[in-house]
Amino acid sequence: MKYMNFFDVVDTRRSVRRFTQTPVPDEVIRKALAAALKAPNSSNLQCWEFYWVKSPAKKAELVEACLSQGAARTANHLIVAVSRLDTWRRNRDLLIEDMQKTGPVPKFVQNYYLKLIPFLYAQDALGILAMIKCLAFNAIGLFKPMLRRPVSKADLFEVVTKSAALACENFMLAIAAQGFGSCPMEGFDEKRLQRILNLNRKCHVVMVIGVGDIDAAGIFGPQYRVDSKLVVHEV
Amino acid sequence: MKYMNFFDVVDTRRSVRRFTQTPVPDEVIRKALAAALKAPNSSNLQCWEFYWVKSPAKKAELVEACLSQGAARTANHLIVAVSRLDTWRRNRDLLIEDMQKTGPVPKFVQNYYLKLIPFLYAQDALGILAMIKCLAFNAIGLFKPMLRRPVSKADLFEVVTKSAALACENFMLAIAAQGFGSCPMEGFDEKRLQRILNLNRKCHVVMVIGVGDIDAAGIFGPQYRVDSKLVVHEV
Repeated sequence: MKYMNFFDVVDTRRSVRRFTQTPVPDEVIRKALAAALKAPNSSNLQCWEFYWVKSPAKKAELVEACLSQGAARTANHLIVAVSRLDTWRRNRDLLIEDMQKTGPVPKFVQNYYLKLIPFLYAQDALGILAMIKCLAFNAIGLFKPMLRRPVSKADLFEVVTKSAALACENFMLAIAAQGFGSCPMEGFDEKRLQRILNLNRKCHVVMVIGVGDIDAAGIFGPQYRVDSKLVVHEV
Repeated sequence: MKYMNFFDVVDTRRSVRRFTQTPVPDEVIRKALAAALKAPNSSNLQCWEFYWVKSPAKKAELVEACLSQGAARTANHLIVAVSRLDTWRRNRDLLIEDMQKTGPVPKFVQNYYLKLIPFLYAQDALGILAMIKCLAFNAIGLFKPMLRRPVSKADLFEVVTKSAALACENFMLAIAAQGFGSCPMEGFDEKRLQRILNLNRKCHVVMVIGVGDIDAAGIFGPQYRVDSKLVVHEV
């Protein structure tokens, strides 16, 4: 199969808010999910998850949790991207195991993954660790360039959600590259979503992505962006 | 010019931690920035900014603020992606102005941008509005599916940073599509960066992206990911 060149894909991708009834083959979703997982991510800890909701019962609940918006209702496939703070240790251990296959892990990599990462990702209920981190970073930062965040749980969620978003963009572009449409949704009831997917409090729903065959009426006019001079600065 | 097909670009893109001295034409960066701005983003409020740091003095400071890591030191270009909570109103007004060119703005769109968005984006120093939002969302959510976030400033930063990350992925892929390398960096001194770029407290630095001609030694072995069964779930 011949795929579109990259810049045509970027130009073609639009948020599609209504899909036709034409089904999208599972293989298209699988290829897009594989592309998603190739996105760069923070320290390669891969604190992301993708739920491809196929059960009709769960899908109906999911559409409702997406406030029954058209992009969810008419989507042929619904994928929920999740970021989480409770898988970094497992993924880190697997990563180190993989490194050990090709020889001893360099000391600085060991220090990074066995000391710095646990220090950054550790959280306690009272936020005392966050305070300690904040003090330590700012004290050292007085004298030399130093990390300032993540310190709080919110900071950590910003980090893992950021990585998951990079993957989501790969996913949506990969759908466009295969000639189908997608719509990223943030208008959802996260509590209901967490119940549907059995997610705990260490999970955030990053976005729900609807995928389907593009209904031309589902694209709202030409793409609008503010003048790039307002958001791109050469300094 | 012929560009790579999309999936080859995704496979080619790696985090490159060392670049050669071969310069990357400005046109390559411009094309990648244009691709960045085509990413989908929350409510199309475009709360993102890209600083292309060209001044040698500022660039030297920036490298130091990136803890002098190789990907920053050897990069031919450095771009700082920023998310911010103080441009949504300006961008919203420009967006509505643009809509008005083609006719009257539908009532539900007006309600969305003139009522819901200000309600969601408004913040006060004490977090009282956040409490009100949280109570309102959860009260309504008892009876029907309802938005639950953003309520706090941290929630809002997660939203705008998420959108900026989507743009960053477009940017990095666009660099790969043109045959060059990039490295997303999160190891930086955000305070120093804010000083260098004159950013206020309503800004978060999303990532610093180094761009250059790929030094083969700057790619650390084959790409590793955990078994996709651990992070992709069909439910």
